[in-house]
Amino acid sequence: MLDTPRRREIEDAASALFRERGYVATSVRDIAHALDIRGPSLYAHVTSKEDVLWAIVDRAASRFERTADRALAADADPADRLAALVAAHISVITADPGEASVFVAEWRHLSGDRRQAILERRDAYERRFRDLIADGMADGTFALTDPAVAATFLLSALNGIAGWYRPEGRLAADRIADHFVDLAVRALTEVHR
Amino acid sequence: MLDTPRRREIEDAASALFRERGYVATSVRDIAHALDIRGPSLYAHVTSKEDVLWAIVDRAASRFERTADRALAADADPADRLAALVAAHISVITADPGEASVFVAEWRHLSGDRRQAILERRDAYERRFRDLIADGMADGTFALTDPAVAATFLLSALNGIAGWYRPEGRLAADRIADHFVDLAVRALTEVHR
Repeated sequence: MLDTPRRREIEDAASALFRERGYVATSVRDIAHALDIRGPSLYAHVTSKEDVLWAIVDRAASRFERTADRALAADADPADRLAALVAAHISVITADPGEASVFVAEWRHLSGDRRQAILERRDAYERRFRDLIADGMADGTFALTDPAVAATFLLSALNGIAGWYRPEGRLAADRIADHFVDLAVRALTEVHR
Repeated sequence: MLDTPRRREIEDAASALFRERGYVATSVRDIAHALDIRGPSLYAHVTSKEDVLWAIVDRAASRFERTADRALAADADPADRLAALVAAHISVITADPGEASVFVAEWRHLSGDRRQAILERRDAYERRFRDLIADGMADGTFALTDPAVAATFLLSALNGIAGWYRPEGRLAADRIADHFVDLAVRALTEVHR
């Protein structure tokens, strides 16, 4: 498959439909209809609906991974690194909420090796959160918790944004990120009364 | 529709299938097959797949509402009330994760008046969190935040449990609840360093 502008249009139209009605309920014909082309013409660009899903999920995973690694590269204390990681994750979602919500909600419709590959990348991505939380617990920055549970708590909260974020909504993306960073860092930080 | 034991069996089988593969990808025939009965016999008990979805979502909504109201009835400070509300929400999920995850993820496949009714009940449920957060901000218990954003943050984190919780998993339901209560209360609480 070539990475052509047409191909990208197809993936964007598919992302929007998968987000709105789900992968299973979207047909190749629906995607073609959204682009105002005939179904058979679409097959010049894609070989199957699952190929389109894979292309979207793979690209989203790469964006999450690249952005997180950049955020974690700074030499900062665990609280600041967590703030950077949370802000990075949210920036990936709000930059392309359609793609992000397909990554978050529809990856389970992949099958075979692709499903396995994404499961492993999701786990490695989540490990960035777990390891950072464990680092912060070790140096006393963070309260004692279960790093896996805390990572799941944070990622569920963050990934929820992919479902409800609308660019025209009440709050701009960077205000949402500010609030979420505060909530996330406080969630991990011991309260001294 | 009668509330018979058979009817409850049908809803439980449907919850498990809707959770596993989604509402759209599950047919009435699949539900009948899971119960080892023939499709036509199922129609003696249910009139449509959406009726089954509605019954599950309606019952789950009632459980969330009732349990939250009981948790909020105590005369306690905002932090303790939030702890009780979070623990209550998690107890509803872990008591019946199949039903809870249909409520969380599949309600959008309802149509017409039922969809509208559930949208309103979801909003009223979320308002319990928003109002409590606003109360805690007003009396200085909680850090300044946007109550709607903070409520969404918490409910996304909590509802994520419906997707990953397994009774046979590493952590018992009450340990998960303990960790989540700590994370949620800290997320709202000002850190004094």
